[in-house]
Amino acid sequence: MSELRKDPIVSRWVIISEERGKRPSDFAPDEKKRQAMHCPFCEGNEHTTPAEVMSYRPSHTEPNKPGWYLRVVPNKFPALQIEGEINPRGEGIFDLMHGIGAHEVIIETPLHQKDITDLNETEFGNILYAYRDRILDLKRDSRFKYILIFKNQGSAAGATVDHTHSQLIATPVVPKAVLEELHGARHHFDIKERCIFCDVIRQEISQAKRIVIENEKFVSIEPFAARFPFETWILPKQHQSHFEMQPNSNYLPLAQIFKETLQRLNIALDYPPYNYVLHTAPVNRTEDADSYHWHIELMPKLTKVAGFEWGSGFFINPTPPENAADYLKQVKLVETN
Amino acid sequence: MSELRKDPIVSRWVIISEERGKRPSDFAPDEKKRQAMHCPFCEGNEHTTPAEVMSYRPSHTEPNKPGWYLRVVPNKFPALQIEGEINPRGEGIFDLMHGIGAHEVIIETPLHQKDITDLNETEFGNILYAYRDRILDLKRDSRFKYILIFKNQGSAAGATVDHTHSQLIATPVVPKAVLEELHGARHHFDIKERCIFCDVIRQEISQAKRIVIENEKFVSIEPFAARFPFETWILPKQHQSHFEMQPNSNYLPLAQIFKETLQRLNIALDYPPYNYVLHTAPVNRTEDADSYHWHIELMPKLTKVAGFEWGSGFFINPTPPENAADYLKQVKLVETN
Repeated sequence: MSELRKDPIVSRWVIISEERGKRPSDFAPDEKKRQAMHCPFCEGNEHTTPAEVMSYRPSHTEPNKPGWYLRVVPNKFPALQIEGEINPRGEGIFDLMHGIGAHEVIIETPLHQKDITDLNETEFGNILYAYRDRILDLKRDSRFKYILIFKNQGSAAGATVDHTHSQLIATPVVPKAVLEELHGARHHFDIKERCIFCDVIRQEISQAKRIVIENEKFVSIEPFAARFPFETWILPKQHQSHFEMQPNSNYLPLAQIFKETLQRLNIALDYPPYNYVLHTAPVNRTEDADSYHWHIELMPKLTKVAGFEWGSGFFINPTPPENAADYLKQVKLVETN
Repeated sequence: MSELRKDPIVSRWVIISEERGKRPSDFAPDEKKRQAMHCPFCEGNEHTTPAEVMSYRPSHTEPNKPGWYLRVVPNKFPALQIEGEINPRGEGIFDLMHGIGAHEVIIETPLHQKDITDLNETEFGNILYAYRDRILDLKRDSRFKYILIFKNQGSAAGATVDHTHSQLIATPVVPKAVLEELHGARHHFDIKERCIFCDVIRQEISQAKRIVIENEKFVSIEPFAARFPFETWILPKQHQSHFEMQPNSNYLPLAQIFKETLQRLNIALDYPPYNYVLHTAPVNRTEDADSYHWHIELMPKLTKVAGFEWGSGFFINPTPPENAADYLKQVKLVETN
């Protein structure tokens, strides 16, 4: 079983994956191990994944058979395992617990050759509904403190399967990056009685220098202190702490702005590798409701300075966010749907 | 002039580099822009770098001429500029200051084809003395709160010049990753009246599961909650907060353990790309003397999961540090010096 271990100095949790147990020779140079012909996520290959935990499909079709629009399956090589007790314990000054959690894959379309931006708004909306439905299901398990949803697009961003998909990891601890946002937002709220994200949105809309696009419900911005060139955040204009609690009327506007933001990045940067991550308040606790504001952080992977920045937390961004916003706004979209 | 901008939510500082002003088309695919023939760091090409700020060279040779063992020059494309006032200011809820600082390159050898581990212990020791001498010089400038020393080895780790070198960035703020360690160490000290790094070293030596090598003065370990496969830390066994304040008698033992650790990584992993960063207490403040403990963090770049982890602060390490320590211990060194 894998272990969750805590750094004693900065309280950062790490998953140590005993089963995977990679040896020096396993770190082969790029691409060697990428699948060539057979794709486990394609329609017709349902038997090559673990059995689906959820799917959107017509009622006359059967689970784990063709005919689906979207499938959610357990990751075949999970970083955490679903069965067992967390068993938190100490080893001298170190803290650790069993590597318990869920690790799922959201297969966003049955068709191999589609980019996520090739999906129409209904199909894109289904991805967002799937995020919600999986959070609502998994939050019933009291072992899980956080449900983290993310996408790795492109090999340079960590994707090992080309077929477009997102991932979900449910963990018995809250990830450090989310905790830092929760604390910062709480600190601001304690002083101002306002949500800091709402304050940022208000200032961004009035300054209008870093906005990529907006609609009635959402805004897509290049953040003031962007770490990466073309880092882009999508936020609901109305205060909301938990992604999964937003009204149904939000999903279509979110699908629209999310898809168009990705289209603009794809056109401006020629389909760059990227990651996005959904930052939402931890499940099953209510104290963040006033101070925290869910959002999506989208990080194109264009520069290679990662290692140094890991060690320092210091970022050098060679593209001012105001310029990035201009480039993205100027992109000409070709209407396809 | 570039700007230092602070994220209003998590208080992370970022350098926004206006001059570099990278446009979408500047993010060309790999390798294109690497220098082919001419190396600015080679002996004989001294005129192609900015004038040296320091060098180790025989007294009969002239600055910016051949004959040197080690040179320190300003970075030709500095992320921060040395002249000017910091001028901290606000823009609504955002905080920023001028991008003031130093950005220097430590050219570790005149010879292009040398890996850092090809240097003998005296030459390796010179690199460590150069780190010290530059810190001692720059700390006299009261605008600088931190002096960050790091190395990017290999293109995948962010190096743009092959000729072996380290870098130094002096900043008017303390990097977030260092602040987090300072706070964690202070918290431990307030409760226990002990340095947490000293506690970790004691436990690691007594458990003897994650030690790579040690000598009288230093220990090289795979940390308990390592973020990356083969992440390795080198720490002085005796408590010491500031790298630049250590006794002269430490430099040779440090050169020995540092070089041998890198040799073992190079042999086990076939000269992997890596970054290392020197974590030392901020200059010109004394409150960290009891609680903080300088060390070197060495991070081989073997996996490609960076983007997701940037967004979550959550790490998945497929090589348990105990296994990594075993592999590194078993490496057979060939004596070359």
